[in-house]
Amino acid sequence: MTIGDFLLRRLEEAGVGHLFGVPGDFNLELLQQLQDTGTLKWVGNCSELNASYAADGYARLNGMGALLVTNAVGALSAINGVAGSYSEHVPVVCICGSIPLKSIDRGLGMHHTMADGTWDRFLGAYAQVTAAQARLTPHNAVTEIDRLILTAWREKLPVYLELPSDIAYLDIEVPQAPLVLAQPPSDPERLRSCVTAIAAHLSAAKSPAVLVDLDVDRFGVAADVMGLAEKMRLPVAVISTAKAVIDETFPHYVGIYNGQASEPHVRAAIETSDCLLSIGYRPIEVTTGDFTASLPADTIHARSHSVDVGDDNYQAVTLQEVIRGVLDAVPRVTSRAVPQRPAATGALANGSARLTQAAYWQAVQGYLRAGDVLLLDNGTSYALLGLSLPPGCTFVGSINWGSIGYSVAALLGTLTAAPDRRHLLFLGDGSFQLTAQELSTILRHDHKPVIFLINHGGYTIERGYLGRTEQYNDIATWAYADLPRVLRPDTTARSFVVKTTADLAEALSAPNDTLIFIEAVMDPYDAPAAVMASSNTGADIDYGPRGPQHRDNVQLRPA
Amino acid sequence: MTIGDFLLRRLEEAGVGHLFGVPGDFNLELLQQLQDTGTLKWVGNCSELNASYAADGYARLNGMGALLVTNAVGALSAINGVAGSYSEHVPVVCICGSIPLKSIDRGLGMHHTMADGTWDRFLGAYAQVTAAQARLTPHNAVTEIDRLILTAWREKLPVYLELPSDIAYLDIEVPQAPLVLAQPPSDPERLRSCVTAIAAHLSAAKSPAVLVDLDVDRFGVAADVMGLAEKMRLPVAVISTAKAVIDETFPHYVGIYNGQASEPHVRAAIETSDCLLSIGYRPIEVTTGDFTASLPADTIHARSHSVDVGDDNYQAVTLQEVIRGVLDAVPRVTSRAVPQRPAATGALANGSARLTQAAYWQAVQGYLRAGDVLLLDNGTSYALLGLSLPPGCTFVGSINWGSIGYSVAALLGTLTAAPDRRHLLFLGDGSFQLTAQELSTILRHDHKPVIFLINHGGYTIERGYLGRTEQYNDIATWAYADLPRVLRPDTTARSFVVKTTADLAEALSAPNDTLIFIEAVMDPYDAPAAVMASSNTGADIDYGPRGPQHRDNVQLRPA
Repeated sequence: MTIGDFLLRRLEEAGVGHLFGVPGDFNLELLQQLQDTGTLKWVGNCSELNASYAADGYARLNGMGALLVTNAVGALSAINGVAGSYSEHVPVVCICGSIPLKSIDRGLGMHHTMADGTWDRFLGAYAQVTAAQARLTPHNAVTEIDRLILTAWREKLPVYLELPSDIAYLDIEVPQAPLVLAQPPSDPERLRSCVTAIAAHLSAAKSPAVLVDLDVDRFGVAADVMGLAEKMRLPVAVISTAKAVIDETFPHYVGIYNGQASEPHVRAAIETSDCLLSIGYRPIEVTTGDFTASLPADTIHARSHSVDVGDDNYQAVTLQEVIRGVLDAVPRVTSRAVPQRPAATGALANGSARLTQAAYWQAVQGYLRAGDVLLLDNGTSYALLGLSLPPGCTFVGSINWGSIGYSVAALLGTLTAAPDRRHLLFLGDGSFQLTAQELSTILRHDHKPVIFLINHGGYTIERGYLGRTEQYNDIATWAYADLPRVLRPDTTARSFVVKTTADLAEALSAPNDTLIFIEAVMDPYDAPAAVMASSNTGADIDYGPRGPQHRDNVQLRPA
Repeated sequence: MTIGDFLLRRLEEAGVGHLFGVPGDFNLELLQQLQDTGTLKWVGNCSELNASYAADGYARLNGMGALLVTNAVGALSAINGVAGSYSEHVPVVCICGSIPLKSIDRGLGMHHTMADGTWDRFLGAYAQVTAAQARLTPHNAVTEIDRLILTAWREKLPVYLELPSDIAYLDIEVPQAPLVLAQPPSDPERLRSCVTAIAAHLSAAKSPAVLVDLDVDRFGVAADVMGLAEKMRLPVAVISTAKAVIDETFPHYVGIYNGQASEPHVRAAIETSDCLLSIGYRPIEVTTGDFTASLPADTIHARSHSVDVGDDNYQAVTLQEVIRGVLDAVPRVTSRAVPQRPAATGALANGSARLTQAAYWQAVQGYLRAGDVLLLDNGTSYALLGLSLPPGCTFVGSINWGSIGYSVAALLGTLTAAPDRRHLLFLGDGSFQLTAQELSTILRHDHKPVIFLINHGGYTIERGYLGRTEQYNDIATWAYADLPRVLRPDTTARSFVVKTTADLAEALSAPNDTLIFIEAVMDPYDAPAAVMASSNTGADIDYGPRGPQHRDNVQLRPA
């Protein structure tokens, strides 16, 4: 089998059905193999950064994603998105069609290089942001392809693979057996001890609780966590990175824990618990109410491959076996009260009134339905985190990495992975401008998402940090709603420019039989209070005690 | 003086008048200092990649450029463009507003990181693609700022600087004296010996000649090289990376040397020279007629900081002093014949005929005028390399790095550096789609370039490598000419969709008082013969003897 065909076969065995990317002369030969074998479907992107975001979005729903780029220029254009997959724990295989081995052996200068005889720089850059890297050769191809794909799957992290352009068509001996995607089993004794310790602590506690981060999704333990919560009547909170990982209609779900910025009942459930089981917890300033989170001192920390219980650290245990073991080991509890959540309230805005953020998000709340895939970019659209999601929704965001523009191309990925679900994208104009062109790929493939774009003339979230009215937070004003027709002249997409709540209501009544693009024109100084509060205190962390945020009136404040 | 103000002062002293970039919460404090001091002008971009391209384009004309990005997501988005500056020898200072030092000291998790307690990864990635890197602290700020800016200027390479967001407003002791941009002087004895050796060789030769690469531009020796050629009546050729570095109307300029793909008189002048002075020569496949270049064995190789003459290598000599010394040392020659160049020919195409690449480039040739700035993206627009440029033109391309999409954002940079010159951009639809949104910044600042976009439905240059008719070389068809009005609804830009030579002639008659956008619709299988010949042989290098390029009819061939 040829090296290229084997790589494509292994990707398919790992569940990858689509390959994103941009063609270049150093990867056309693999594209030809893909075309000839029909193993994967090629989804060409407008840029490599967008391909990396699309592969990430795809992997979130599909379990694994991949992209194909060309040497150096393609690889480095994609590196921000691939690094984001590391930060967000998403398994993505980044394949770089690289300069031929011949040119390395002979020291020949090539385009797409530094033209200085070096060829390891891009592997070196990727070593900073991926879990494993390799340049394939005919000698190492079998072992390296398997190592990289397995590492991505087991660690839920991206990997980087260079395929020199002159070896894809060379034949090698390959194993017949398909790739087995599995974690190495836990050490039996460690697993037993660990499960026993956790179960004992949970059973003895008066107010046990669970705090969930995104690894609960990535390592596929959400159902068992919910099973455990149900069996023991444990309140479960998530941090914002794990929005919707626990179905928000689940009776034991209490909400998002975010330090002092949490709702009081969530804060009480977590901070006063006498046995908190925290899973995959990775606190950062924006998920801890700016470092005001306060977990109980004896919190049990379960990670993907290890657990802390008190002074004991258990290695060689997998999260899946630990949670399953605990679920089996604990007694069923029926006496504990199921937590009550405060009901959401909100008065309807006047239909002819100029659209406000408050009215906008209220309308969005009413638009959501079961099974939606919700994509969130960074900015005032963070207000989405405060909405209650119907059952079966999937949330795709980038809270840790926070790369603006991610969501547009990630949307292409989620649409490709789950074309039969409804996908809603929430973002602002500033984010949209980074990756707007990928809308053309979404249109080209006849996808039917709903895009909620806030047009407020700039980076409103930054105005809460600094430069409330400064021009550096302003951006050019586009006719956003006209863009679909430029990117696909024969599109059937429905575009709306909404300025009042009545306009928005009309747009929301459109059927989902084609792409819907809603440009909501709002005041640049209107922003959700929770987002502004976070920006205001974030500035104190960022700029310190002598920073410029202390001057009068330089921060947009919560209304 | 505060650290931020000192950094801005040093940039200004280094000749930087504009700062490109994208705001983020970790760099807003420096933007506020920029705004308050008025030292530099801020030019906000749509994306960080575009900012890096813009800074590169700016530096090509201005001598030095800079951009400002935010931690990780901004820095990694820009890294492809900054690496391109390395490959193309362009001095650019990439400033990353990074996470506060406090968060490093205390081990606090932050957004825009891997959320795993690491903070050196992005410095590590940039170490692969820049000449120097540093994270500023109050203790090292003065020395590191000067080291980085001087390194960029002296080496003509990019550097990377992290400014933690909590120190920009801290006061430090700073030197009063302005930064002196100068190369360290050559070692006097080495310089003398080197100059003597070169002058002796040139004087004794019967057919001396000069071959110029881009360092002749970057190190500012083009005028002295032309002086030397004039004094000794030396024929001068350039490689394509150095297009227009030697004024193409200069009597001793003979053309582009590209191995066997050169015009015969250029090949003869270089390959049969009995004393070739080559300056900054960095051969790669696409500048050597696919490794068919054959320089004389005893070629003198002058580099930015060293020279080879025969078996002798001279270190500690600067290019500027070497060339100036040689110019002074050689005798004036009046007996040698000035080389004659063959006159360009071409019959005019029928006005109503469907526009062909041949007719297109003929019309472009007639449109060029003295002093134009010409930007070239990668693709069939390489045909521009074959045109004869009027006096005083500047060529901005990316032949070594070859990152498609570079030119759109680089155009913003060249326009910012030289707003009073006429700027022409030549690119194809595939390249445009990567960075199209930066057109909005060009429109926002009322620039008036002429954009020549070829709409031929995909990557025609790649069809010459492989996949002549394969869909992986197709792209979505946009209504390109409608884009200016979406990106700036009140634009006065003139857009043309041209399909015949008469259409093109009409578009070319429009006055240059606003932005002109010319979308030329051409056949996907029409391509300049020289570009296709290069793609065809490039495939043999890329895919090797068992590659797919050997099948029938898989490559687009020269007409």
